[in-house]
Amino acid sequence: MRDRPDHELRPLTIELDAAPYAEGSCIISTGSTRVLCTASVEESLPEWRVGRGKGWVTAEYAMLPRATHTRVGRERGTVKGRTQEIQRLIGRSLRSVTDLSALGERSVLVDCDVLQADGGTRTASITGACIALHLACTGLVTAGKVERHAMTDLVAAVSVGIVEGRPLLDLEYVEDSAAQVDMNVVATGGGGLVEVQGTAEGDPFRRDELDRLIDLATGGIARLVAAQRDLLGLDA
Amino acid sequence: MRDRPDHELRPLTIELDAAPYAEGSCIISTGSTRVLCTASVEESLPEWRVGRGKGWVTAEYAMLPRATHTRVGRERGTVKGRTQEIQRLIGRSLRSVTDLSALGERSVLVDCDVLQADGGTRTASITGACIALHLACTGLVTAGKVERHAMTDLVAAVSVGIVEGRPLLDLEYVEDSAAQVDMNVVATGGGGLVEVQGTAEGDPFRRDELDRLIDLATGGIARLVAAQRDLLGLDA
Amino acid sequence: MRDRPDHELRPLTIELDAAPYAEGSCIISTGSTRVLCTASVEESLPEWRVGRGKGWVTAEYAMLPRATHTRVGRERGTVKGRTQEIQRLIGRSLRSVTDLSALGERSVLVDCDVLQADGGTRTASITGACIALHLACTGLVTAGKVERHAMTDLVAAVSVGIVEGRPLLDLEYVEDSAAQVDMNVVATGGGGLVEVQGTAEGDPFRRDELDRLIDLATGGIARLVAAQRDLLGLDA
Amino acid sequence: MRDRPDHELRPLTIELDAAPYAEGSCIISTGSTRVLCTASVEESLPEWRVGRGKGWVTAEYAMLPRATHTRVGRERGTVKGRTQEIQRLIGRSLRSVTDLSALGERSVLVDCDVLQADGGTRTASITGACIALHLACTGLVTAGKVERHAMTDLVAAVSVGIVEGRPLLDLEYVEDSAAQVDMNVVATGGGGLVEVQGTAEGDPFRRDELDRLIDLATGGIARLVAAQRDLLGLDA
Amino acid sequence: MRDRPDHELRPLTIELDAAPYAEGSCIISTGSTRVLCTASVEESLPEWRVGRGKGWVTAEYAMLPRATHTRVGRERGTVKGRTQEIQRLIGRSLRSVTDLSALGERSVLVDCDVLQADGGTRTASITGACIALHLACTGLVTAGKVERHAMTDLVAAVSVGIVEGRPLLDLEYVEDSAAQVDMNVVATGGGGLVEVQGTAEGDPFRRDELDRLIDLATGGIARLVAAQRDLLGLDA
Amino acid sequence: MRDRPDHELRPLTIELDAAPYAEGSCIISTGSTRVLCTASVEESLPEWRVGRGKGWVTAEYAMLPRATHTRVGRERGTVKGRTQEIQRLIGRSLRSVTDLSALGERSVLVDCDVLQADGGTRTASITGACIALHLACTGLVTAGKVERHAMTDLVAAVSVGIVEGRPLLDLEYVEDSAAQVDMNVVATGGGGLVEVQGTAEGDPFRRDELDRLIDLATGGIARLVAAQRDLLGLDA
Repeated sequence: MRDRPDHELRPLTIELDAAPYAEGSCIISTGSTRVLCTASVEESLPEWRVGRGKGWVTAEYAMLPRATHTRVGRERGTVKGRTQEIQRLIGRSLRSVTDLSALGERSVLVDCDVLQADGGTRTASITGACIALHLACTGLVTAGKVERHAMTDLVAAVSVGIVEGRPLLDLEYVEDSAAQVDMNVVATGGGGLVEVQGTAEGDPFRRDELDRLIDLATGGIARLVAAQRDLLGLDA
Repeated sequence: MRDRPDHELRPLTIELDAAPYAEGSCIISTGSTRVLCTASVEESLPEWRVGRGKGWVTAEYAMLPRATHTRVGRERGTVKGRTQEIQRLIGRSLRSVTDLSALGERSVLVDCDVLQADGGTRTASITGACIALHLACTGLVTAGKVERHAMTDLVAAVSVGIVEGRPLLDLEYVEDSAAQVDMNVVATGGGGLVEVQGTAEGDPFRRDELDRLIDLATGGIARLVAAQRDLLGLDA
Repeated sequence: MRDRPDHELRPLTIELDAAPYAEGSCIISTGSTRVLCTASVEESLPEWRVGRGKGWVTAEYAMLPRATHTRVGRERGTVKGRTQEIQRLIGRSLRSVTDLSALGERSVLVDCDVLQADGGTRTASITGACIALHLACTGLVTAGKVERHAMTDLVAAVSVGIVEGRPLLDLEYVEDSAAQVDMNVVATGGGGLVEVQGTAEGDPFRRDELDRLIDLATGGIARLVAAQRDLLGLDA
Repeated sequence: MRDRPDHELRPLTIELDAAPYAEGSCIISTGSTRVLCTASVEESLPEWRVGRGKGWVTAEYAMLPRATHTRVGRERGTVKGRTQEIQRLIGRSLRSVTDLSALGERSVLVDCDVLQADGGTRTASITGACIALHLACTGLVTAGKVERHAMTDLVAAVSVGIVEGRPLLDLEYVEDSAAQVDMNVVATGGGGLVEVQGTAEGDPFRRDELDRLIDLATGGIARLVAAQRDLLGLDA
Repeated sequence: MRDRPDHELRPLTIELDAAPYAEGSCIISTGSTRVLCTASVEESLPEWRVGRGKGWVTAEYAMLPRATHTRVGRERGTVKGRTQEIQRLIGRSLRSVTDLSALGERSVLVDCDVLQADGGTRTASITGACIALHLACTGLVTAGKVERHAMTDLVAAVSVGIVEGRPLLDLEYVEDSAAQVDMNVVATGGGGLVEVQGTAEGDPFRRDELDRLIDLATGGIARLVAAQRDLLGLDA
Repeated sequence: MRDRPDHELRPLTIELDAAPYAEGSCIISTGSTRVLCTASVEESLPEWRVGRGKGWVTAEYAMLPRATHTRVGRERGTVKGRTQEIQRLIGRSLRSVTDLSALGERSVLVDCDVLQADGGTRTASITGACIALHLACTGLVTAGKVERHAMTDLVAAVSVGIVEGRPLLDLEYVEDSAAQVDMNVVATGGGGLVEVQGTAEGDPFRRDELDRLIDLATGGIARLVAAQRDLLGLDA
């Protein structure tokens, strides 16, 4: 199935300002996976954060019903455990590179809506959400609402896994379904690890396999961050 | 605010097959309003429809959180009354031009997800949903699953209203907010009326105003249906 | 089935003060349809209305479980889309004839509870709710809480439809079930239109049919308003 | 406040067949408390009762929003604990005088909707529900659907309490609010006790007070059952 | 099944301070029924109690899923009517022996979590909750937060019932399932009755049976209160 | 705070059969953290698993309200994202060492109820749940319901983290709160990794820190599995 080397990312494109009403936005495409990320700045805070002189960054994640091969119902009654896990992961990842005191007492809510799903939607969401958040923070600086840009670094994420014994970078849906081990790694532009989440889908995995997967992931993330920098016009 | 004649539609573009996994789909844009419409064919029926030898067509409607100028929360807890009204309206409109017995015992669920909202999202949804449903029904014919195309006509919709005393066709958000009367009209390619929903936002309206609004709406719908026919390669 | 002319209303009776604890109330009967309407004055406002120096009028609608031929479950879990549509319609209709600034910062909530349902429950609710609201506003004047009566006109509603090709006024349940077109019209004592909601249940309808239905409806509403005036002791 | 002897019931009226579509119904009035009771026969059973050759009887209880002096919101989100307690009590009381095997595999759901509330709504509901259920069971006999009437006796209920040291029968709202002890008693036509629920609202009560309250209650219930018998045309 | 006299309690043990983080706690065991009771003091009040200079005492009740012979699902969606009834009963019982003004504007929430269920879980909960609440109130005195101990007496509860015609004290699960009459009685250390809740599960019961059951219950409660006193080091 | 070496586990005790009605159960204590784990065998499957000739193992996790220093409300309305994450993690961990085809078409639901929480509740839950599941599977063998024991290995889990720059094994609550990096590792008796979940709470972490944490964790898990084996009477 795979028509590129095992350690290669899928083709990446990021369209900036895809949602013109949002304070920051992009559509990120990695292969056939496409996610619309929008950052909304609100001059308010969740109640438990008020009065600390700091801001807050959080995220929501959803799939459009036909992002997938067969329709998946909207989460109108209850939000699934999987969705909540992903939302919490995106939020933590963004906060790891945000100086909340630089935001002031305001919040940024980043929405990640999956338009098309072919594996890696949560990691693409993180990589795209970082762009949307960065644009929104730049807007706050431009508007003179904050003194300095609130992001201290960039953050990106990628999935890795072992399929038929081969460690692979950036799994598509069919690879993901067949993976014995499935791992998501989030890291910063500076190379620091933010999240490592590896799961044996079938048999447990060995320590050396874990090491190899992390090598693959950090290599891929370095290239994703380079693309983010390029797009945002930042120096490396 | 309006830079076109009172009886003119906003610029219309329809991108076919915008959601490749869906059985039929398009993104419809009228001015700055953009809606993704996807039709999902399912080989099952809601329980109360089973065993009649007929199909079912229904619709869901949602806005992405930053489709609007300020973020609107997802309807994860409860679905708002407004949303339910719109969903029921889209479903009824589609069924008015569908021969449910031609579908067989299967259902088509059309999702209308508003990507960008600048007034007229419910009417754009109907016009786009008709396209998505038509493509899906064509697919059923091509696949040999049904004997004849289930749609008996096309259906489209438009909003009209009275703003500062002037009857206007196809209101943008700022016009809609200022309208004294707000009306949505749904009609078929054959010119038959399917739904007429007029509401006085402030003072009641006169009978002659109602007449003028319906004239405007039916004129606009005729042009929308012509565009649908053109795109779908149908004869008038 | 119909034992009266096509343009005739069903027998109408309105019992005032049917719920003695309410600030205004009536039971309205049109044929076999019976609705208890109660207006509750509260010295508070929904949060989003506070601080404007104006009041608010809203409505709730429900059916008793055995108002109908077969029992319908209570809406204890979720409120159905149909119910929400009706509630919003009643509220808008009442507000179209209310001067909210004359109310002061208080709200009136009108409950419409259907005791018996034989078609036209939403239109009977509007006609009865107008009475209950009027009585409550009169009470506010009498008690010296407001300077002037908050209602600027009366409002009433009726259903019309086309059954077996015949345009009929004020449909009973059996007629409603058989109608090709079903329309609800709300209008004021002054003859102004407040809402026009027409739906093709089967085939679309023609423009001349729409015109005939609106004629029938406005004629019926004029007689309903005359009965309201009579009952409330108002001059025409 | 009380204008009748301490051991006297409030004036009782029962209007039969108040809800013509229901299989059995009445409006019971005790003083200013009024409850509409309707019995609905359904040819189905809750899943856990299927296949035993027996029927089921259950009840729902609700208050109309303006049954009370100040409006009480509808229980649309969640059903309150108090409501559930009352519903379970009514259901148990009815089943204590019903031969479920005589019903066959069908269920009767009795709805008790309080139109006006001046104390004792749960006990009036039981007394009225018994009438509605009896009429529905008679209808099943008449229609030849069952061989024998499913009710083995009548059941009625009354509240008693101690107010300012005086044991009183059949408390109105103002008495109920001031009661030190509040007790509801349910008993059959044969004089057997079905439920005894006594609660100290303030100080605990003594054994001799309990005895006196039960005497009062059983005396009152005997008179209620006599009225039920009279109305239903049954011999004592 | 019963290996002790009809008027005898099951073996009782109470382990104090079973939940070290709570302000007061115990595990009460009566036969095979075991309940963990914890009292949590909070320096806040439900909104409707604020500003009266008084405290509030309330309770929650739950069963661990495998407290029972077959697993019972957690009440995560909705809280069952039975659970709500029990919670309200425990709360009322505790408040009947608490001087709320001695608490100040704080609340105590007593959680009763059934670890093992063999009948009588609600009455064991009351008896144990009284201990937990007493310990918490003592803690408030010791910490100098209140001037006097808020409890004015002790409270305990027991179930009684008629099984195969024999009145029995303190029913186990198998006895409870077979009981014709099931009664829960709550009384204070001073012998005053707080709650009497008797239910005929099958045939109604006679007045003399009621009298005998209450005798049994008050005898049992006297012994439970003696055990509470002993454990808490109080004089009789 | 720490009174033992950095690479040492907290004192571990496991009480077998703590819930006598369950098919398998234990209370696991690691330091002050205590979790009751019960395994319930049910002769049924979730619908989507029926007909594959295989069983299913799943888990639920909850905290008693006063397991913590300040009371945490019951999750009666909605289950929190954190709870769902933990439940899914426990379930996956158990399934990684279970041969579902050896179970037959039945399910085992393991409940982990935290009695006392001092950090590491999710990892203690996994280690204890493995014991409860093992006992239940042994019971199925003994009862002759299955041919072979369904567990193919044991599984245990532990938390590790970096606190003030020092990598520590098995964090207590105060350590966990102060950790810069927090990681949970699940591994089998055979030493295979099942889950690795590491999160930077503040600054990102380096690759060599990750390596050191995994060393610590696998060392600790080896000792936990040895204790499990000992207790269950299994050979190493």
